[in-house]
Order: sequence, then C-alpha cells, then structure tokens
Amino acid sequence: MALVSFAMDFTVSRVASAHLWLYQEVGDYPVLKFLSWTMYPVALSAFSTGFAQSITQHAGGSGIPELKTILTGVILEEYLAIENFGAKVVGLTCTLACGSTIFLGKVGPFVHLSSMIAAYLGKIRTSVSGEYENKIKQNEMLVAGAAVGVATVFGAPISGVLFSIEVVSSHFAVRDYWRGFFSATCGAFMFRLLAVFNSEQETIIALFKTSFKIDFPFDLPETIFFTFLGVICGVLSCAYLFCQRWFLGYVRRNPFTARLLATEKPLYSVLVAFLLSSITFPHSLGRFMASRLSMKELLTSLLDNRTWSVLSQNVSLDRPPQVDPLNLWEEWWHPDITFFGTLSVFLVMKFWMLVLATTMPMPAGYFMPVFVYGAAIGRLVGEAAAFLFPMGITGEGPPSPIIPGAYALAGAAAFSGSVTHTLSTALLAFEMTGQIAHILPVLLAVLVANAIAQKFQPSFYDGTIIVKKLPYLPRIRSRHIESYMVTTQEFMNTDFVILSQEATFHDILQVVTTTDAQEYPVVDNAESQMLLGAIQRSSLIQFLQSHEDSSLPQEEPGKEVGLIPDRLLSGQTLKEGCTISPVSLQLSPWTSLHQAHNLFEMLNLQRAFVTQLGKVVGIVTRKELRKAIEELANPKAGR
Amino acid sequence: MALVSFAMDFTVSRVASAHLWLYQEVGDYPVLKFLSWTMYPVALSAFSTGFAQSITQHAGGSGIPELKTILTGVILEEYLAIENFGAKVVGLTCTLACGSTIFLGKVGPFVHLSSMIAAYLGKIRTSVSGEYENKIKQNEMLVAGAAVGVATVFGAPISGVLFSIEVVSSHFAVRDYWRGFFSATCGAFMFRLLAVFNSEQETIIALFKTSFKIDFPFDLPETIFFTFLGVICGVLSCAYLFCQRWFLGYVRRNPFTARLLATEKPLYSVLVAFLLSSITFPHSLGRFMASRLSMKELLTSLLDNRTWSVLSQNVSLDRPPQVDPLNLWEEWWHPDITFFGTLSVFLVMKFWMLVLATTMPMPAGYFMPVFVYGAAIGRLVGEAAAFLFPMGITGEGPPSPIIPGAYALAGAAAFSGSVTHTLSTALLAFEMTGQIAHILPVLLAVLVANAIAQKFQPSFYDGTIIVKKLPYLPRIRSRHIESYMVTTQEFMNTDFVILSQEATFHDILQVVTTTDAQEYPVVDNAESQMLLGAIQRSSLIQFLQSHEDSSLPQEEPGKEVGLIPDRLLSGQTLKEGCTISPVSLQLSPWTSLHQAHNLFEMLNLQRAFVTQLGKVVGIVTRKELRKAIEELANPKAGR
Repeated sequence: MALVSFAMDFTVSRVASAHLWLYQEVGDYPVLKFLSWTMYPVALSAFSTGFAQSITQHAGGSGIPELKTILTGVILEEYLAIENFGAKVVGLTCTLACGSTIFLGKVGPFVHLSSMIAAYLGKIRTSVSGEYENKIKQNEMLVAGAAVGVATVFGAPISGVLFSIEVVSSHFAVRDYWRGFFSATCGAFMFRLLAVFNSEQETIIALFKTSFKIDFPFDLPETIFFTFLGVICGVLSCAYLFCQRWFLGYVRRNPFTARLLATEKPLYSVLVAFLLSSITFPHSLGRFMASRLSMKELLTSLLDNRTWSVLSQNVSLDRPPQVDPLNLWEEWWHPDITFFGTLSVFLVMKFWMLVLATTMPMPAGYFMPVFVYGAAIGRLVGEAAAFLFPMGITGEGPPSPIIPGAYALAGAAAFSGSVTHTLSTALLAFEMTGQIAHILPVLLAVLVANAIAQKFQPSFYDGTIIVKKLPYLPRIRSRHIESYMVTTQEFMNTDFVILSQEATFHDILQVVTTTDAQEYPVVDNAESQMLLGAIQRSSLIQFLQSHEDSSLPQEEPGKEVGLIPDRLLSGQTLKEGCTISPVSLQLSPWTSLHQAHNLFEMLNLQRAFVTQLGKVVGIVTRKELRKAIEELANPKAGR
Repeated sequence: MALVSFAMDFTVSRVASAHLWLYQEVGDYPVLKFLSWTMYPVALSAFSTGFAQSITQHAGGSGIPELKTILTGVILEEYLAIENFGAKVVGLTCTLACGSTIFLGKVGPFVHLSSMIAAYLGKIRTSVSGEYENKIKQNEMLVAGAAVGVATVFGAPISGVLFSIEVVSSHFAVRDYWRGFFSATCGAFMFRLLAVFNSEQETIIALFKTSFKIDFPFDLPETIFFTFLGVICGVLSCAYLFCQRWFLGYVRRNPFTARLLATEKPLYSVLVAFLLSSITFPHSLGRFMASRLSMKELLTSLLDNRTWSVLSQNVSLDRPPQVDPLNLWEEWWHPDITFFGTLSVFLVMKFWMLVLATTMPMPAGYFMPVFVYGAAIGRLVGEAAAFLFPMGITGEGPPSPIIPGAYALAGAAAFSGSVTHTLSTALLAFEMTGQIAHILPVLLAVLVANAIAQKFQPSFYDGTIIVKKLPYLPRIRSRHIESYMVTTQEFMNTDFVILSQEATFHDILQVVTTTDAQEYPVVDNAESQMLLGAIQRSSLIQFLQSHEDSSLPQEEPGKEVGLIPDRLLSGQTLKEGCTISPVSLQLSPWTSLHQAHNLFEMLNLQRAFVTQLGKVVGIVTRKELRKAIEELANPKAGR
C-alpha cells in the first residue's frame, strides 16, 4: 500500500505540474487559458468515472461506509473483490490529478484498497475451516487493512489505527490493535522511506512538517479562542453534514440527475467538473480562492508558522505569475479584499462546491478536503485573533504573539473530527505536522466540535449509509434510559417460519419459495417447538438441488404421481440431509433492548432467536432493533 | 484528580528538597550524613506502609491488577470503596517523597484512586435500577476513571486513554472512548493549568519538555540502532518480568519474609528501605548512580538534548556539592568510570533494587521506575552510538550528529511498553516531551520490544494477577488453532447442582449449605430439566432468611415436628418466593472453545449454562475455560 500510495502521489504531482505548465505556456489568450484550465479536470474526471464504472460498479465513492457495513457482519458480495483494485487505483489517480479544482482526497479509497488486499490475503491464507473462524480472521485482517490505508496516506501510524477503528467499528479487541499498529507502522515507514529514496527529503520527517515556536506555544487566554473555534467548526460541520446528506438524496430523487447518474455517469462528472473548474479559473473567482495551489500546497500554506497579517505589510501589489513554493501564502493575498476576504470567499464557495463534488460517481475520498476546509476556518480565526492582539494577549513579560498556524491545525482537526465523528483527527494533525505542543487546545477544540456534531447530525459515513440504504444499526443515546426498560418481547418478530427436523422435501421447498429469510430456526417437532439449531437458506437450497438431481421421477411430470412413494420423492428429511448448526445465543423475552443492542453490536449478529423454556417464541433481526430504537427517539410514532 | 495530583507533586517536591537541605546542612560527619540520608526514606516508607495498612488492607500496591480483574466482571468487595482514598493518597505521598532511593512511581495508584472516585460518583448518581444497567454504567465510569488517572499524572490525555484501555480491558466500545477522552482532557488540562497558576511555568507546555533538533531528527541507518535498542529492551523486560514474578512469589513462600509480611509489614518496609538507601548513599555506591537526582530529574537528565560525550570534554574533575538544575547530567559523570560506567552501574543495581522495591507492601506505582530505567538503557545505547559516529553516520552533506536523547525516549517507551505489554507508551513519550518527530523509530523500537516480551512473558500486571491468585482468563494465542476444534462439551462441568422451580425451603437450604456456586440454574422440574432461568446465591440466602424469620416453629427444636405441616415450614416454593432472572446466553455443547472464550471476554461473563434442546447439560465458568486453554498450551497435561 505504501508503494501504491507513493506511486500515486508521484504521478499526481507530475500530471498536476504538467497542467500548470500548459496553463502558463498557452500564452495570454483568455480563451485558451480558460480551455487549458477547464479541459484538464473535465477530461480526467470523465475518464476516472468512465474507467472505474466500466470495470466494476463498486469502485466509486469512498468505500468506508460499505466497509463499516461489512464489519458489522453484513455480506456485501464482491465489494472487496481484488478485481476492483486496478479500477479504483487508476480512477483515484485521475481524481487526485484534478487537484484543488475538484477538491477531493484519497483517504477513503485507500482504506477500501487496503481492505481489498487484506481480504485477498485472507483468502489465499491456508485457513482452518469453519464459518465462525473465517469470519473472525477476516475481520482481524480488515481492521488492520483499514489502519494501513490511513497510515500510508498520511505517514501517520498511530492515528491511522485509531481513526480507522473509530470510523469502521463500534467495538474492538485490544489484540487487534497490536496487529493494526504493526502493519500501520510498516506502511507508514515504507511510505516515508520512499520519499527519502526519491530524494524529496533528506530523512524521514512528517509529511506536512511545521515549525511553530514551541517555547511558548500559546497563552492561557487563547484557550477561549480555541474553544470558540471548536464551536464554529461544530456548527459548520452540522450544516455541511445536513446539506451533503440532503443533496446526495436530492440528486438521487431528481428525475434529471437520477437518469444521468443511472445511465450517463461520465456525463454527470463532466458537467460538475466543468462547473467547478470554471469557478476556480484563476482569472475569474479563482484568484480569490488560491485556486492555483494543489491540495497539499493549500494545506502547507494554511499551516504556515508565519503570521499573514505581518507578512502582508511588505507584499508587492503585483500578483506573481507563478506559484512561489517558499511563499505559498501569497496566493491567498489579494490587494482588494486582503486575505480575510480570500479566506471568506474560499470558505463560502468551497462549502457548496464540496457538497457538489461529493456526488460525483468516481473513486474519491472526502476526508482531505474536509481537513483543508477546517484548516481554512482555523486560519481565519487565528489571523483575526493575531490581528486583534498583535503583541499577544497578556501585557506583561516579553511579547508572545499568537500563532495563526496553530489555529489552522486545530480547525483542521476539529472540523474533520466533527464531520467524521472521530477524536483521533487531533492526533492525526500532530503526526502529520510533527509537532505536538498544542495538544491540549487542539483536543479541546476537537471535543467541543464533536460534542455539537454528534448531538445534531449522524457522521458523514453514517449519513452515506443512510442515503445508500445500507443495513444500519443506530446507536442508543445515553438519554434514552427507557432502552433498559423495553424488553425483547415488545419488539420481537413473532411472525416467522420454523422448520421441523422432520421436514420433508415438500416442506422445505414450500418454505424456501414462500419466504426469504437467511436463516431458519429448526425445532424438534411442530407441536413442542423446542429449538434445536438453525439452518442457512443456502444449505436448504443446496439440499433441494442435490435432491432434485437424484429424484429423476420429477422430470417426467406426465407420469402418474400416485405410483411414486412419498419417501422416494422426498428422499430424506431435513435431519438426515443437512447439518443443523447449533445456536449459541438465544435471547429471552425479558432481555432489555439495551442488552440486545449491545449483543448485536459486539457479536456482529444479524439475527437472534428468542426462546422461552427452550421453545422458540420470536426472532429479532437488525430491522426489529432499528425500529425499536427509532421508537425510543420518537415515541409518538410507535407503540 | 488533577488537584490531588498537583498537590501531591507539590508536597513531594517540598519534602524531597527538605531532605536534600538536611543532607547538605548536616556537616561533614560521615555518620550524620549517612543517617540523614537513610533515615528519611526509612521513616517515610514505614509510615506509608503502616498508615495505609492500618486503615485498609486494599491500599497497598498499584491497584491496576485488581482493577483489571474488576473490569472482567469479578466483584472484589470494598476494593473501590471511597474509604481507601485518604489512606492511599497519604501513603502514596510518603512513598513518592522517598524519591529515587526507593525508586517508585505514582501511575498505578492514581488509576486506582480515580477508579474509586468514579465508583463513588457512580453510586451517588440517581440511577435506573437493575443489575445489568448498573454494571454497564459502572464499567463506563471505571474505564473513564482509569484514563483520568494516567492523564493527570503525566498531563497526557490521548495516551492516558489508550494506556488505560490497553492495561485494563481486553475489549472496548468506541463510545466509551469518547467519555474517556473528555474526562482525560479535562484532567490533563487542569493539571497543567495548576502548574501555570503556581508560577512554575509561563504557559501550558509538556511535563518533560525536550528540545531536540527536529530539522533532521535522525538519519535512516539509525533505524537499525533503534531496532537494536528495541531488542535489548525486549530481552531485558523478559528478564525483569521473570525475576519480579519469581521474587514476588519467593517472599510469599519464604517463611521469614512471609511472616514479616503477614504480621509486621512496616518492619519489612523499613528493612528494604534501609538496604536501598544504604546503597544509594552518595558517598558510597550512590555516586555511580546519580542518586542525588529525584525521579523527575533523572528523567529530565536522561532526555537531555545535548550529547554527554561532547559535554564531558569540558567538565571539571570536582563534583559539585549541590545538584545543578541546568546541568543535571553532571550527576551522571564520574571521572573514574565516565558516564558509560555510571549508566551501567545504574542499570545493574537498579534492576534488582527495583525488583526488591516492588515487594514493599505500600501504595506505589511501578510504571515510572520502569520508564526511567528504559530511558537509561536508551541513553546508554544512544551515547555509545554518538561516541562511535561523532559526525553522524552518512559521510555526505552537513554533519548530522546522533541525538542520544531520542534513544532515551525510545528506550523509555520500549522498555515500559514491553513490561506492561502496551504500545501507547510510544505516544505517552511524545505527549510527555511535547515532541513527536521521532515517531517512526520509537514505534519500531516499541513494537520489537513488545513482540519479544509478549512472546515469552505475561505482562507485569498479569504476572501480579497470577501471583496474587486473582481470577484470570488467559488469552488464546493465535498459534493454538485447536481452540476452534475443541467444543464446549469436552471441557464443560457436568457436575453441578440445579434447582427446580418447585424447590421447597428444605431443598434450597440443602443446596445453599452443601454447595458454594454464585448462581444456580433453575429448571422446570427435575426430570425434564428445561432451563427456566438462573438465581443468585444471594437471593436464595435472602429467601431463606426472610423465611426463617416468619417460621417461628423452627426456633423451638424441642417441639414435635410432626405437628408442623411441611408447607408451613417451607412456606413458599422457589417460584413463588424469588424472582428468577432470565438467561440470555446459553452455550451449545458444540460451541468451540475460541467462541466461548470470546463471549466470556466480550460480555464479561462469569459463567454460562450449556443447554441442548432446552435441557441444561453443563455449566462453564472461567475456571473450566482457563483449564481448557492451559491444556491447549500444554496438551500432554490434560485430556
């Protein structure tokens, strides 16, 4: 994964600099400039969408919501097939090559790519047999894979593990943690090593190394500003999450866009890419949005340890024809509106542009743009604070000016953390920048922003799961203490089909054709209904098929049926023909909703039978649980 | 907890400086010097032991092993009672005031103290009733409490959460993580804030702030040295863990020490403290061990960003009469044996001194000494590397000298991590020092050291659990794939007592007096043995007591029993007199050992009934599981 990540970064930077070169060399004809600026991302995104979609339908989007669903025990066929790998890599490279115009990242797809490799490695491993064992082993591999994905994008092993855990699981075993750390460290190490071998850097250092003054990182009263920044990030993330979810649903409902997305995906991408690149054209609005910077340059410029308001006092009025790598911040300077204006324009425009970009059906990550957006929020707050208090806040002692770069760091961590409902973005920010002096204020901002976002909105990934209608188990909020009182008998499904162990071919055929459950309870006989075990639908179908093959008389329906003895037709009973798997977990009718939810979450259950004195009285699936939880939140709707 | 931690640090530093002052002022009489040096720790440790033991027997030691046991669902009565709080605080303050002579820390007791507060807060909270709910809520509080304990000792919120999770749990819910982060951040923030208010520092910075050069933190080939350091730390930690466990068992077996520990605990502490302080006396061996430095000063000196071999070229031959706070490293310098000698003496002597100190029956933590010890290992390796390659390793370019302080950091993280079997010590090292540039080499060292230690020895806390014979569930190693094949019916206990729902007073009395299980299965009747639910021993005793009170005839045994109808004596049956709690989890005889182990670990089970067609056929407790797991590791012993 480190090799893939490095090769992708390398290719993307070459393609992007070719684009900038073309844009410079095309001369001073506005039309040519405009075309050279817009055609590049349009072509790349069209190719990205088309190529990925033509190979597989699973390559689009981030992949984290689906991985999260898989880790709860749902089987999404083919989603982790290694065949998707190439399509996603090529598509993602093209997406990233569009740069800050399309404003998308690579974290999500990398998590998906690593999980594919993990699943593939899991399959070729000589394994002990058995469904349970394989499931356990596969989950271990997938969790480690997700950690590697994050670690190889940012070269950040510890937060790679933590972020992937927070994003994809609801429970985890400490022993998985070790495996995750090991593979993530190897991945991050290799990723940074390649940068050294490629002579980009002299030695292994952080990806976005900052050089903040650490003798006096921040003054105590600044804590208030950091908390304030956390509040802003929290509120903005709620607005973003709401708009994103609403818009994602809207393009699926609207007849025009829905048809485009169903049949002409590349065309949709082309339209969106053209709109986005027209807006970022440096001769129009783009000059107020630092649109000539790539994603990496944007982040580097925002994390600058210098104070822009100090730098801007000596700046020339002319805009440099090319981006100056040592003074990236100059791109944010515009004499008419100063950098406060450009930052504000950036925040306003990128808000809806990002919402729009997330609907594009191509492989793309949504973490990095959110991170950069948060850094811009933080920079704005930090620069405002530095402008208001140029000599620092406390009057006594030597002046200790405010460092706006630290606010950018806190903003990035807080905004990305609240959008994804994670706390480890704080650590990610430190690992990416190689400095940890601002740990307490950054953590404060992240906690405040998370508290607001978690209260009002589902996370970005949960939102996508909801919109995509993937199986989903909502969490029970602490304030719903009724969840301890509601018992299983109140919400269990009592309308279900049971199979007797004496069931014949006919019985089974009837059950399989009239119902669509994945698993059936097997009882000793229809009267007593004592639970014996469970049987998978797939085993039943196999039983029917093997039986059909051997019972030749069936193929001649014209014959008198009376001559065929019933036992010849039905051959064996269920007991003889199939292996009935034992049921280890049975709920009782008095199990509380909270406890049932906890069991489903911890053990990744899909369904559980409810027994009373050994007799099956009900069945609980994730559907029933979800309904019961939703009734808690909204009591007038149900019961 | 932050207030307690700060007040304790403040007191300890005052007491310790009073000790040093006394030692300086006592004049040049060797006997007086010796007495003033030794009597202080002897008196303090005697008081610590005596005071803590006189109030409660639970105040001694670290507390983490017991907390770990409690979090697996075992009820250790009174261990978290708030009454222990004062005793442990006072005792711990005295222990810490002994300084580097006794060489003990405060992490473990702080985890214990915070858990006490957490349990207390949990009790006074108005709660929904019900055993299950309270257990869930209490565990949430305890995990957050443990995080606060670590965070307020080091001012390190993120690693506080992670370290406490790794040490005390085997599984955890991501939602607990949030609570832990919140409380740990508050704790760490308050702790560092108090230092600012007390004018110790100008603003909030790391506790052991380092100032390593971060432009070129380390050269690539140094990775090999870091890995080598990891190997050394791993091997030494195995040796330490083995010796510590053996010696802890030895003092319990040896008749003399066992009697001392049973009856005269303070005397044992006095003897050990006298031995330790005689050795660290600065006029004898102490001058080779930097014994005039406190624990904090030791760590600060070892993490010095300067290279000792460079500094020592200009050092005067005379030893300064007092410790120079700006040149703490001079304490490590001795003209006869240089600092390589002093570091080696320190490592050799402190190894067995620490093993000895851990047997002292007073409140004390064992993490900080291990951390300092690891830093010394790292410093030795780092100084040796800097001595061998004075201009850095690669010849080309500007010289990039090796930073021995970074090796000290890596050594501290690797050794403490391998002793406790945790990885988050790496992060702790960064949070404590405020610099994260060496993340990859430090993580490498920690991973290597952990791999070695986890392979050969149980962790420090597990070792203590084993020696103290607390209930303990060993983990199943990945290589024991038979754990998937062994089924519950092979190891379940089939010799158990069941209660019929029709059981009378006599039956219950007989069951309670002849057996000692904590929970009994209740069946519908003795023939069919269909599992109805379970009943706690305590409910049975309550039933018997309430019944005894009302059945006056029992009090006159002289009377003719024949006159009392049986139903008057036995009053009610079990069904009528007690509430039978439903059983939500039943194992099947074909559940694999791995799955059963997983369920016990995740759900903190103490026992589970094994049913077949609703009929109780066995019972599995942690004892059976442990035996089965031990048989896996040692197949010739069993089966």
